Amino acid sequence: MQLFEKIERTTEDFFSREELENKIKEKKQLIIKYGVDLTAPFLHIGHAVNLWMMREFQNYGHKVVFLLGDFTTTIGDPTGKLSTRKIMTQEAIEKNAEEFIRQVSKVLDTREEVFEIRRNSEWYSKMSISELFSLFQMVTHSRLISRDMFKKRIESETDIYINELLYPIIQGYDSVMIKSDLTIVGSDQLFNEMMGKFYQKKFDLSEQVIITTKITNGLCGINKQSKSLGNYVAITDSARDMFGKVMSLPDKDITDWMRVYTDMSLADVEKIEADMDSKILSPRDSKINLGCEIVKRYYSQEEADQEKEWFITTFSKNEFPEDTPLINVSNMTDPLYQLIHSNIMKNSSSGEIRRLISQGAVSIDDNKIVDPYYKIPMMDDSTSDNQIFKIKIGKRRFYRIQAASC
Amino acid sequence: MQLFEKIERTTEDFFSREELENKIKEKKQLIIKYGVDLTAPFLHIGHAVNLWMMREFQNYGHKVVFLLGDFTTTIGDPTGKLSTRKIMTQEAIEKNAEEFIRQVSKVLDTREEVFEIRRNSEWYSKMSISELFSLFQMVTHSRLISRDMFKKRIESETDIYINELLYPIIQGYDSVMIKSDLTIVGSDQLFNEMMGKFYQKKFDLSEQVIITTKITNGLCGINKQSKSLGNYVAITDSARDMFGKVMSLPDKDITDWMRVYTDMSLADVEKIEADMDSKILSPRDSKINLGCEIVKRYYSQEEADQEKEWFITTFSKNEFPEDTPLINVSNMTDPLYQLIHSNIMKNSSSGEIRRLISQGAVSIDDNKIVDPYYKIPMMDDSTSDNQIFKIKIGKRRFYRIQAASC
Repeated sequence: MQLFEKIERTTEDFFSREELENKIKEKKQLIIKYGVDLTAPFLHIGHAVNLWMMREFQNYGHKVVFLLGDFTTTIGDPTGKLSTRKIMTQEAIEKNAEEFIRQVSKVLDTREEVFEIRRNSEWYSKMSISELFSLFQMVTHSRLISRDMFKKRIESETDIYINELLYPIIQGYDSVMIKSDLTIVGSDQLFNEMMGKFYQKKFDLSEQVIITTKITNGLCGINKQSKSLGNYVAITDSARDMFGKVMSLPDKDITDWMRVYTDMSLADVEKIEADMDSKILSPRDSKINLGCEIVKRYYSQEEADQEKEWFITTFSKNEFPEDTPLINVSNMTDPLYQLIHSNIMKNSSSGEIRRLISQGAVSIDDNKIVDPYYKIPMMDDSTSDNQIFKIKIGKRRFYRIQAASC
Repeated sequence: MQLFEKIERTTEDFFSREELENKIKEKKQLIIKYGVDLTAPFLHIGHAVNLWMMREFQNYGHKVVFLLGDFTTTIGDPTGKLSTRKIMTQEAIEKNAEEFIRQVSKVLDTREEVFEIRRNSEWYSKMSISELFSLFQMVTHSRLISRDMFKKRIESETDIYINELLYPIIQGYDSVMIKSDLTIVGSDQLFNEMMGKFYQKKFDLSEQVIITTKITNGLCGINKQSKSLGNYVAITDSARDMFGKVMSLPDKDITDWMRVYTDMSLADVEKIEADMDSKILSPRDSKINLGCEIVKRYYSQEEADQEKEWFITTFSKNEFPEDTPLINVSNMTDPLYQLIHSNIMKNSSSGEIRRLISQGAVSIDDNKIVDPYYKIPMMDDSTSDNQIFKIKIGKRRFYRIQAASC
């Protein structure tokens, strides 16, 4: 069926595919659990892979339950953290929840037939400790510490706090409360969601299917996208930033990104791959293509075309942007060094700045400089018609300087 | 000071003695936490060691807070259990609580100046899950599993359920709520009560002192007293049962019991020990002495004297109890065999009964029988004046038989 075709493209694994097929055969509206931790209201296009898959289910009439983990966030999720996470106030959580909904609505259909917002404080704020212990009573210590992340922490003798140890139970029981049929998560959430299946079974409910999704390298070409590494395209990035960021992607990752982050047909992507291999197509043109597709997905075809145009004009033709700042320098013995020091590498040593220059990062009037002690031949201020020098540092920083006329 | 002298007699260890001395120096009424699990309302004189120590503190004006673990009992304490414990209903717990109070009042002073009943449901039934998690957040996994009993279970791959794992946290926080200064426990509770100190410190309270008490062999001479082994003297046993049970104690444990379970002066106990060593004093007389002291402690001097008298008359002088049943036998070819078979060893084979006789368990008119086929020379029923035979089987079973006159 067409739904599976679309979903499989970004699926790592199903737990299990057969269960999902059976649920779909029942022709009921499926409940898709989309649980979020509210510590960081920030979605990049990696997260959005899951959202687009959910959107696909919505297109077939299924419902996404957007589950705000307002309770779980207060207790601290240890997922993917080898150290212990700070815990947030309720106020900060509420603010983050709003922002999260704003971001999610860029991808999901938020009409109430197919979208519902729930909060896990709905049940956890009312639950008695006795009830909670009756959940604890169903799970063994060995089951919990079988989680990879806990094993790693135990091996490295990094503390696991008890609230963290219990997190999978809390997250798992959420699936009982919303009676989810499906959840689409990164593989780092597999253990927690398996607890969901475990508890649903204990409570005689139909067990949710778990789909884990493909994770692709971030912009740096090595790690997956993450806020702290700065190697992401955020779904709230402007069309210009999206396009620009894509252009910095390593060539080797272009077609992977096309498969995972765009709607391009797989046949088209294969053709591009082949054409790049045989040098018919340049990586630069492919990246421009990719940039357009990503902007189109989050904005429009029109904006994609605009950004392509802007990018080609600005960077590819090596034209200076119109708004390049003009900096007046007066009586400087070393204006290039001062420029870099004042505007780019404020906290760096002079050795580091000289190294940058010697590596060829700087060009003046289209000539690459390699002498780290290169002096720009500025005219002195007695001259009436001072020359303007166009300085380019790295790929994106442009300055114009002239001797001050004072 | 005199208090310490009395306490030390049954103390295994202080955590720490210095802290206790400081608390006593403050001249405030100390709060002594006496927490009980309500699964088994049953106290033997081993448990009562702790109660008598608390009573000593009460004599100095300190207060025992009798903390009914009505909440903790619902979640299951794993202490001393290598397997997982069954969980009780609230109703059963309430019934047990009543019975527990009845038993405790045999030792403790229950005037309200020095005795207060609390229940840990007071705080746990009101506590939110968020608050609970803020407690969990203070403790690491490695701290919890450092508990010996958990280590053993992990090594033997016996399941630890999460409710059990968390039990020390729940019990520990009780000490915060009642602001205990002291708790007197068996060493198997040391870990849980150290969690009490831990939480009190976290909550900026004065940390409780923990006294662990000496544990002595039970009646069998090997294991400590326990209900399931049947090797105990219960504090609710009748004076007669107490006395009789003490008389079955192995000789080697007599002076230990005197030190731990009586008020006898240590000098007297030492003298008894020496006299028994030099055979001046028989173990039997020492045990009678011990029996009297224990009955005196739980009943009175008068009752102790009565039981001693009864015991000596009945068993020691080999006198037949007045109420020994008279059994008429008629035309029996083997009245001794029939007597044993009908009254004592109903389900045993004839071989087993013959073996009992041949081992010397039976005496007739004070003569020990060893021939397993011994025939009592009963007169036949034509004789007018039938002889009565006095039969003793084992140490405590007495019968009189005569030929039936019909």
